[in-house]
Amino acid sequence: MAQQQSKRPLTSLQKAVNKEVLVRLKMDLEYKGKMTNVDPYMNVILVDATEFSGGNPSATYGKVVIRGNNVLFIKISSDFPM
Amino acid sequence: MAQQQSKRPLTSLQKAVNKEVLVRLKMDLEYKGKMTNVDPYMNVILVDATEFSGGNPSATYGKVVIRGNNVLFIKISSDFPM
Amino acid sequence: MAQQQSKRPLTSLQKAVNKEVLVRLKMDLEYKGKMTNVDPYMNVILVDATEFSGGNPSATYGKVVIRGNNVLFIKISSDFPM
Amino acid sequence: MAQQQSKRPLTSLQKAVNKEVLVRLKMDLEYKGKMTNVDPYMNVILVDATEFSGGNPSATYGKVVIRGNNVLFIKISSDFPM
Amino acid sequence: MAQQQSKRPLTSLQKAVNKEVLVRLKMDLEYKGKMTNVDPYMNVILVDATEFSGGNPSATYGKVVIRGNNVLFIKISSDFPM
Amino acid sequence: MAQQQSKRPLTSLQKAVNKEVLVRLKMDLEYKGKMTNVDPYMNVILVDATEFSGGNPSATYGKVVIRGNNVLFIKISSDFPM
Amino acid sequence: MAQQQSKRPLTSLQKAVNKEVLVRLKMDLEYKGKMTNVDPYMNVILVDATEFSGGNPSATYGKVVIRGNNVLFIKISSDFPM
Repeated sequence: MAQQQSKRPLTSLQKAVNKEVLVRLKMDLEYKGKMTNVDPYMNVILVDATEFSGGNPSATYGKVVIRGNNVLFIKISSDFPM
Repeated sequence: MAQQQSKRPLTSLQKAVNKEVLVRLKMDLEYKGKMTNVDPYMNVILVDATEFSGGNPSATYGKVVIRGNNVLFIKISSDFPM
Repeated sequence: MAQQQSKRPLTSLQKAVNKEVLVRLKMDLEYKGKMTNVDPYMNVILVDATEFSGGNPSATYGKVVIRGNNVLFIKISSDFPM
Repeated sequence: MAQQQSKRPLTSLQKAVNKEVLVRLKMDLEYKGKMTNVDPYMNVILVDATEFSGGNPSATYGKVVIRGNNVLFIKISSDFPM
Repeated sequence: MAQQQSKRPLTSLQKAVNKEVLVRLKMDLEYKGKMTNVDPYMNVILVDATEFSGGNPSATYGKVVIRGNNVLFIKISSDFPM
Repeated sequence: MAQQQSKRPLTSLQKAVNKEVLVRLKMDLEYKGKMTNVDPYMNVILVDATEFSGGNPSATYGKVVIRGNNVLFIKISSDFPM
Repeated sequence: MAQQQSKRPLTSLQKAVNKEVLVRLKMDLEYKGKMTNVDPYMNVILVDATEFSGGNPSATYGKVVIRGNNVLFIKISSDFPM
């Protein structure tokens, strides 16, 4: 089981822990912040996060736990143009 | 199993029990109150909760059990600007 | 397993059995009545229930079994302003 | 497992087998008829059923098997004002 | 397990195999034809099927496999007024 | 388990592998092509596929893997009027 | 179990790892890029990806993890007209 898990994209996601990510939700909302935790369901904890609604910053969050089933994608890494 | 659970964001959420949180639902509703209980599905119990609809207070609840599948995110902690 | 279950908010919900509750559904419907039974999926039985649609009473039910997946939240207890 | 099942609202629903019920679906449809069978998913068989759409009778069914995931609630019993 | 299955409405549905049925989907579509196969998820095979959209015949199918999660209900049997 | 599987409509679907099929999705999209692979979730691989949107050809695909949960039905076989 | 997995379309998808693919989501969004990882839920990692909204390029991503449940289909291979 552990072996199968290690082949999954969601395991790769673990490598981005403690990095800046952009989490896009199904509804037109995005959250940019440091991802301190993520699980196989894409439940994510972001710290020092900014919420973007329709592309504009709409709120800030010291710490927020996003429920994975709302996630469309998570953008990782160096190139972070937004 | 218990070990795997302990790595999950939802376990981190347990640390916020008995603290003030803000629960945002998929539909445009938010609930602010003391989180006395939360489980891995993000089923949450809030006490002394205020409901916000479209950003405005719309109701109060002595005790309310929110079904996890409606949750978009849970905001935790010290910085609680709203 | 039983142990894990006992930590869940849905177990706490069991304590409200035979009390007056307000069940809000995802669609704009609410049901107020005595909760005689509830399970971990928030399947609920209400007796002597009143349905509210858009805040207005719209029907009464001697006994109704609500399917849990439609539930947004269940409001419990003493303070029952509505 | 059997023991846990027996506490569930859906088990209580079994007692209403062969009685008249009203099944409300998520979409604005209701079915009134004799419930000859029901399972824990609220899959239901109704015989001699009448369909109501927007409150008006719209069709009749000698025997119909309703898929449980569409069910909002099932109204049981003596008081059957509709 | 087999025993529990035999009590389910979906097992009763098996008795209607090779009979004419009407399958109503969540979206406003109906399929009338001979049901040659059905499983507990209400995945259904119809042969010589007619599709009705908004009540009017819109297509015919020699053989079609309908995915169960789209099904609202399956109407069985002798009385088949439509 | 294997035995139960063999009774399912989705197993019957296996017989249509390497034949021309029409896959209708929930959203108004259809894909016509040779089905080289299908599983119990109705995940499907089509080769030399044509996409129809609103009944009109809108794209072609050398090889496409359609996620099963989007499927409304799969039309099989000889009679392929469209 | 491993054997059953190997017959699934999603296993075939594994062969397209490190190739250019086009991922279409349920909402009108497409992502074109190199698929470095994919799992049975169609969770996908794309690198050097371009997002198309309504057919027009709308963003670029160095590395993005798309949650499988949003996927409509994945187009593979040589013929890549878009």
